[in-house]
Amino acid sequence: MPSAALHLGTALEGSFQGAGDMVPSARLLTPNGGAAAGPAPSRREETANGGGPDLATLRPTNRPRGKAQAGKPRKRAPMWNLQAAVFVSVVLNVGLLLQHYVNSTAPSHHHHQEHLQACPMHLDAGVGRNRRGRQEEPQLSMPKAGAPSTGKPAVTPDSVINLDHGDPTMFEEFWRGTGSAAEIVIPGWQTMSYFSDVGNVCWFLEPGLDHEVRRLHRLVGNAAVDGYHVLVGTGSTQLFMAALYALSPRAGSAAGAAPMSVVSTAPYYSSYPAVTDFLQSGLFRWAGDANTFKGDTYIELVCSPNNPDGAIREAVLSSESGIAVHDLAYYWPQYTAITKRADHDIMLFTVSKSTGHAGTRIGWALVKDRDVAKRMTKFIELNTIGVSKDSQLRAAKVLRAVSDAYELPEMKEAHRLFDYGRRKMVERWSMLREAAAASGIFSLPEETSGFCNFTKEMAVTNPAFAWLRCDREDVEDCASFLRGHKILTRSGSQFGADPRYVRVSMLDRDDAYDIFVKRLSSLQ
Amino acid sequence: MPSAALHLGTALEGSFQGAGDMVPSARLLTPNGGAAAGPAPSRREETANGGGPDLATLRPTNRPRGKAQAGKPRKRAPMWNLQAAVFVSVVLNVGLLLQHYVNSTAPSHHHHQEHLQACPMHLDAGVGRNRRGRQEEPQLSMPKAGAPSTGKPAVTPDSVINLDHGDPTMFEEFWRGTGSAAEIVIPGWQTMSYFSDVGNVCWFLEPGLDHEVRRLHRLVGNAAVDGYHVLVGTGSTQLFMAALYALSPRAGSAAGAAPMSVVSTAPYYSSYPAVTDFLQSGLFRWAGDANTFKGDTYIELVCSPNNPDGAIREAVLSSESGIAVHDLAYYWPQYTAITKRADHDIMLFTVSKSTGHAGTRIGWALVKDRDVAKRMTKFIELNTIGVSKDSQLRAAKVLRAVSDAYELPEMKEAHRLFDYGRRKMVERWSMLREAAAASGIFSLPEETSGFCNFTKEMAVTNPAFAWLRCDREDVEDCASFLRGHKILTRSGSQFGADPRYVRVSMLDRDDAYDIFVKRLSSLQ
Repeated sequence: MPSAALHLGTALEGSFQGAGDMVPSARLLTPNGGAAAGPAPSRREETANGGGPDLATLRPTNRPRGKAQAGKPRKRAPMWNLQAAVFVSVVLNVGLLLQHYVNSTAPSHHHHQEHLQACPMHLDAGVGRNRRGRQEEPQLSMPKAGAPSTGKPAVTPDSVINLDHGDPTMFEEFWRGTGSAAEIVIPGWQTMSYFSDVGNVCWFLEPGLDHEVRRLHRLVGNAAVDGYHVLVGTGSTQLFMAALYALSPRAGSAAGAAPMSVVSTAPYYSSYPAVTDFLQSGLFRWAGDANTFKGDTYIELVCSPNNPDGAIREAVLSSESGIAVHDLAYYWPQYTAITKRADHDIMLFTVSKSTGHAGTRIGWALVKDRDVAKRMTKFIELNTIGVSKDSQLRAAKVLRAVSDAYELPEMKEAHRLFDYGRRKMVERWSMLREAAAASGIFSLPEETSGFCNFTKEMAVTNPAFAWLRCDREDVEDCASFLRGHKILTRSGSQFGADPRYVRVSMLDRDDAYDIFVKRLSSLQ
Repeated sequence: MPSAALHLGTALEGSFQGAGDMVPSARLLTPNGGAAAGPAPSRREETANGGGPDLATLRPTNRPRGKAQAGKPRKRAPMWNLQAAVFVSVVLNVGLLLQHYVNSTAPSHHHHQEHLQACPMHLDAGVGRNRRGRQEEPQLSMPKAGAPSTGKPAVTPDSVINLDHGDPTMFEEFWRGTGSAAEIVIPGWQTMSYFSDVGNVCWFLEPGLDHEVRRLHRLVGNAAVDGYHVLVGTGSTQLFMAALYALSPRAGSAAGAAPMSVVSTAPYYSSYPAVTDFLQSGLFRWAGDANTFKGDTYIELVCSPNNPDGAIREAVLSSESGIAVHDLAYYWPQYTAITKRADHDIMLFTVSKSTGHAGTRIGWALVKDRDVAKRMTKFIELNTIGVSKDSQLRAAKVLRAVSDAYELPEMKEAHRLFDYGRRKMVERWSMLREAAAASGIFSLPEETSGFCNFTKEMAVTNPAFAWLRCDREDVEDCASFLRGHKILTRSGSQFGADPRYVRVSMLDRDDAYDIFVKRLSSLQ
């Protein structure tokens, strides 16, 4: 099968070259995605690596198990050259898989490249069977053609563990347990129009989603909804851009007006500078840490609990012409005590972090001012002509299942999302603090607590990310140090902070999280 | 019920004020959505009205029928002041509906405003029952809480007919007929990750969609796919922005480089200038008609068949540093003969126009160059961290149903989308040409034809939009003239053309299209 083999070689080479391209130069990439020819200004450097999941650090690293692996000596990868080792390992093993692939029942098609590239991510699925006996379903075979994707590759004890991005796959286990409560069926003829509700400011918002968003906030008590417009976005990232667009001075209102300054207290979410600056908009520009900002006119981004460090935040600036945007993606009972009903002018939320449905790409904004809501809607109209109805319907169904589990008397306790999420987060934070103590070279933010109006009891904060500091004197770049131990995290430097810090996702699947904690505890 | 009545008043007032704000000032709005303080440069004017569906012209205009209407004299609206008439009419009738609303079984919630605003769009649903006996299902009651939206309000012979945007609801009838072939079921735990295929350049692309896109292009023969990367976007609009981002000079490569000029032959799609300029990017800017452009460095947008006029287009510029982006949204057999397999460097497609699933917001790009594909992917990562998996899975299922109907021997002929689409478009264009002839004051582009490699027979072009010219000497603004007869279209001026022209959607539901044609034929 020379043809397939040729395709394979190209695919793998391409795949690893891609990663190779991107990893070392990540912080030198320009906002336009290319390598800068000369030294870029520091503002550009900060914006370089993107706010989303960093693919540079996501490589298929798993070896096939069982028959394909039998009798094959495993290559030992030097810690400092994982990439080459992974390449060799995958080449060796994919060869063994070819027969299975070529003889499989998959329909004939001509893009072997894509399918073979996708193979490694599925090979080990099932290996990570939950060692604590939960209900995760093993997936021992390759996915059938056309099957929905399953996310990042599963891991083994030797895998590179990628906790660079906040992929919330921890929640899959919960949703597997809820049966059909959050399942949707969409007939071929449904919601084909651009329009959802021509009478609403946000004309592409499904009324059912509007309803469930308001219902859930009333249940949890984390945000006021009366008197607010609900806007939907393709994730809260799009709504963040929409807010910048809506709040920046309008062209024509002051000829030659400077772009609006966008600031946030460091450490700030690495997406903020990246998303603000990647199109080099004349309307707004990243202006760094809010604490050192001089001026009266600005947009201050207030993320609370804060990404990356979980701190409860308030706006630090105050002026008549300054405006705050509150990113409350993590203001949910699994992460923190709900101490008050937030009632800011613009509040952003997302299903990615509240229910774990990142792939659904649904965020929402609660906006007081009608004109701001209209301009944010206009942004989304120009950017993507609205937001997927399918995902809106799914998000509505998911949020409904969450509220139903608390409000309907016949529902099982096991179907209560926030109870599940809090239990998991408490357990994970306890494991992490033990591992850091065992290692002796890491420190973590102190635990804080508060009375939660939702659970009616005291609750400690369990942030969705760990803001981990490496205390070893000779380690100046904690992300590099951990990468050397096959743990991928995001460097503090991307958050406007000291590179001795890293941000670590706490929301990955059990198998990856367990390996991470075990590996961390062994570092000296 | 004073409280409900109060909410109602506010809602309606807000709703119609909103429309009032937007309609007259549409061409004076700045890219930031606000009214310009002084005269804006003409480039700004062109960008004003947005590329998406123009909500300014979408007003709930239907009166409730049956009991609520009995004995109520209908207000006669002067043609030149529809807005006021509609306001009065709805106020009168919504009053009658309040009792029904307040006593309804809808769950209690506090956002009366949105629900009452939404009411008018559903009241007359079912009135527009298909007069040609097709299978459209009447909807005689208000939608139940949480039900999926149904798009624009249904119409009656007196309604304002909105054909301003290309809402492809014509295709609903076809998909209702295909039963479960295009239905999807999404369990609560599925595709929760950000990632779909970590080995692919476009890491958020569902492999199943990649497969069905390639399969359909091979079936239809309208575009080459071997050697191309498939990228997915939130509609093709997002991919258009991604292409601008990917093809513009990278910051750092030439300090102080001017933004890339973006051009297209007039008449060009009204979205191109709007989407290019709304963020005032330093990377690219709208530079108008390609035919009058001077320079070597540019991005030329080539839409073929062209929106708005259906013309078959080729790039008109040629230079080593110029790049063409081919928007082939309408290059499908229902609209035109498939005369060759397009094999341009960057080609854009969308389900909105190929299958009619606009609400799903899925477009795709076929891209030859790997680096361009990577930068386009980076744009989407920064803009929305990928694209809804739910919509990708749905689009894959829909495209699969289209291919299956032609490739599987057991499928019914009635399930062949392009046959259906062509039949409908031929019928509609015939009706339109008859109406224009009967009226005597309108002209249309001449019919052209070609040999279609897909159907293996000669086929005339049946564009998705009619580019209609009003020939009456005293009518300088055709859109205003038609608006006076309750027909909403998009003015030629928004396409860089003469306002004696308008663009009219040919893809609305039968009831609206029939009323449009009848009304048009009566104009003198």
